[in-house]
Amino acid sequence: MNYTLLTDLYQLTMSYGYWKHNLHTHEAVFHLFFRKSPFKGNYAIVAGLETVIDFIENFHFAEDDIIYLATLTGNDGQALFEPAFLQYLSELKFDCSIYAIPEGTVVFPHEPLLRIQGNIILCQLLETPLLNMLNFQTLIATKAARVCAAAEGESVLEFGLRRAQGKDGALTASRAAYIGGCAATSNVLAGKLFHIPVKGTHAHSWVMSFDEEMEAFEKYAEAMPNNCVFLVDTYNTIEGVKNAIKAAEVLRETGHEAIGIRLDSGDLAALSQAARALLDAAGFPNMQIVASNDLDEYEIAALKQKGAKIEVWGVGTKLVTAYDQPALGGVYKLSAIRSPNGEWKSRIKLSEQAIKVSNPGVLQVKRFWEGGKPVGDMVFSEILPTFSFEMHTFTDEKKHYFSQFAKNTELLVPIFKQGKKVYDSPSLAEIRDFALNQVTLFAENEHYKVGLELSLYELKQEMISRRFAQI
Amino acid sequence: MNYTLLTDLYQLTMSYGYWKHNLHTHEAVFHLFFRKSPFKGNYAIVAGLETVIDFIENFHFAEDDIIYLATLTGNDGQALFEPAFLQYLSELKFDCSIYAIPEGTVVFPHEPLLRIQGNIILCQLLETPLLNMLNFQTLIATKAARVCAAAEGESVLEFGLRRAQGKDGALTASRAAYIGGCAATSNVLAGKLFHIPVKGTHAHSWVMSFDEEMEAFEKYAEAMPNNCVFLVDTYNTIEGVKNAIKAAEVLRETGHEAIGIRLDSGDLAALSQAARALLDAAGFPNMQIVASNDLDEYEIAALKQKGAKIEVWGVGTKLVTAYDQPALGGVYKLSAIRSPNGEWKSRIKLSEQAIKVSNPGVLQVKRFWEGGKPVGDMVFSEILPTFSFEMHTFTDEKKHYFSQFAKNTELLVPIFKQGKKVYDSPSLAEIRDFALNQVTLFAENEHYKVGLELSLYELKQEMISRRFAQI
Repeated sequence: MNYTLLTDLYQLTMSYGYWKHNLHTHEAVFHLFFRKSPFKGNYAIVAGLETVIDFIENFHFAEDDIIYLATLTGNDGQALFEPAFLQYLSELKFDCSIYAIPEGTVVFPHEPLLRIQGNIILCQLLETPLLNMLNFQTLIATKAARVCAAAEGESVLEFGLRRAQGKDGALTASRAAYIGGCAATSNVLAGKLFHIPVKGTHAHSWVMSFDEEMEAFEKYAEAMPNNCVFLVDTYNTIEGVKNAIKAAEVLRETGHEAIGIRLDSGDLAALSQAARALLDAAGFPNMQIVASNDLDEYEIAALKQKGAKIEVWGVGTKLVTAYDQPALGGVYKLSAIRSPNGEWKSRIKLSEQAIKVSNPGVLQVKRFWEGGKPVGDMVFSEILPTFSFEMHTFTDEKKHYFSQFAKNTELLVPIFKQGKKVYDSPSLAEIRDFALNQVTLFAENEHYKVGLELSLYELKQEMISRRFAQI
Repeated sequence: MNYTLLTDLYQLTMSYGYWKHNLHTHEAVFHLFFRKSPFKGNYAIVAGLETVIDFIENFHFAEDDIIYLATLTGNDGQALFEPAFLQYLSELKFDCSIYAIPEGTVVFPHEPLLRIQGNIILCQLLETPLLNMLNFQTLIATKAARVCAAAEGESVLEFGLRRAQGKDGALTASRAAYIGGCAATSNVLAGKLFHIPVKGTHAHSWVMSFDEEMEAFEKYAEAMPNNCVFLVDTYNTIEGVKNAIKAAEVLRETGHEAIGIRLDSGDLAALSQAARALLDAAGFPNMQIVASNDLDEYEIAALKQKGAKIEVWGVGTKLVTAYDQPALGGVYKLSAIRSPNGEWKSRIKLSEQAIKVSNPGVLQVKRFWEGGKPVGDMVFSEILPTFSFEMHTFTDEKKHYFSQFAKNTELLVPIFKQGKKVYDSPSLAEIRDFALNQVTLFAENEHYKVGLELSLYELKQEMISRRFAQI
């Protein structure tokens, strides 16, 4: 399956226009960023870059793509695209440069997550798939980090496949949820493709396929003694716990220990306390209580508040669809352009809403550190002649100074240079470890400052006040 | 790409248990249904069946799937699955029977959208992918129908790719949105794969890549005279409209007509009225006003209320993610089982919440008609010896009688019989036409009755009151 056509038609009609006017010899710079952190939080965890890299490495118009494009017509019934342009597309190779913030990094609104530089046609064609991939995975990694924070170090299992938005909505959600801190997924294909641990035991249907719950538990334990989490609420939860204990006793006689029980309905706080007491009294203090049923970070926090005795949290629908905010509003804006051998011209998208005015230039982000902790991020333009350690913050437009002696690191790192991959992709487990570390570093970040470097800020103000779109 | 492992691990661990105990010789019946209509509406439009058919026709465990499954271990570090079971899986062929409600049909809570009958292992393995595919597409088709209803017959274009939940979240959303009534999509790959009309012209970046907006419009019109919708809000909307008019005048001199303009920010009601007046005064009464910017059915209704002069609605994020309810809570329940050559036994899933108690048996839905209009649906079990024209409604548990002389049709139709496809799949355009007709038929359906046939209702009550899970 070739996904090169996974883009908006207007990217192709604009590309045709650029080609007709010979503007594809112009070099453009676009940035991908979001304007507001999701879930009323104050940051996001970026994810999706590996999916982007994979997409780009396979980017090419296949013969059947070209045949399809040749069938498209305009309002006069004539073809939209002339054959010479389709020929151009069929020979088009990705040769742009991409800088991006590595997956698992904590990022803030208005920071470019990705910068692409090169043939404006390629930049344009990639806009939609890049947004699709980075928007969604960043959203889910961030949601997962929130859920894991609520679980306070206890295991969170991602169970979302059945309610996810399509096959890939499920697969990439499993990937992003793992980056965000989940311990495992129920999705076997995600386990196979991304090397994520997989978990699962049995459902209500197993219990219902036998005449008695007790028989169902015993038969399950007999078949799979090393993977026993008994689901106890098919008929009556407390009776189910008692049956699970009996099954665990039989299992122990064969030299195996049951892993635990799972609660999937009812008052999870009260039921978990009752179940814990029963399990402890029966000599099963190590049997874990797993809970599921429309959980999210708020529900987990509420259950903990009520003293629930739950040690493993199965989270599905509300995690993989980011139920309370199912889209990250990431955008992708042109910010600089130059004709062959010309000077860069910075560009800006104006708007009556200040938050929607884009930042001009070729952008990079410096993260400043003090005492091993990040203290602030500064967005600056690499094509401005001056650089200051002073910035204007995005949130309150106040000035903030960094010490020029403070350690700083640049967040955007090279991924492709002139089409060639120059990035050593970390493994998913490494990305997850990095993200967990990032979350710890940013645990108390109320005073974290993010803003625009002074000369960039001044350029932007000048462009806005003169209603200039380019300088 | 083989998607056979796109299932929850517990489907495989249960399958292993069934296999160990030789229960895969038992025939099971499962139904897929939802308990509550999405978006506080009173029905849904079922979609996703073709995706399911495609999945099933490609269902098989490939060699690398088996190799992966052999690596999974339990809490003693030993393999979860023994080699003979993996051998069984590698030879497993889909040979179940499936009945389903055709795509585009208006359906109600508790009605089985799909019934599967056969080897309990196959039924179990297919649970998760079937839910994934039918839940999501049904959700989006329903959302699209609501958006199209708000647009009152005007064109709705689906623009959601960049904010959709993954590649497939976008592709299948485009498909389902088309079924629900959208006129076209921006997603070129969805156009190619599903033969959906595609639409698109240019974005802000086109305008920003030129020094002046006027130049951008003229150059666009020059390149693509048969596909001109000018996006007018890059810098200032009203100035943009004036520039679009100038570009349309130049275009007219070459013998082409501009299609319209697009508004993407600001007060869409007021701006569309101002733009309409300018376009009409300039002699362009046929230029359409397209609007986009976080639209959904509520926003469209509000804009119409304010007298907006918008004729084409571009709807993205809120449609393809079903923003206000991003998951349909469809479930899949075992409802009958029989041992080889045995009698059917009906099964029920009990719950403290009445709405969560499943319906036992081998179910079918009769839709009754009067005067060419549907008047009510009755869910009944094919394995009960009696059948009554009396039912208990789901919503208020009241009795309702149908005339035995009224025309009735059965909603579930055969798709696969013993693994062989017996269904003539309609084209997507046919499905869309059927769905549009369904929406018209159910336009005024406040009094539509849906319930359980009397003898099924009585069986269910008996099972609940005795706390029997099977009869």
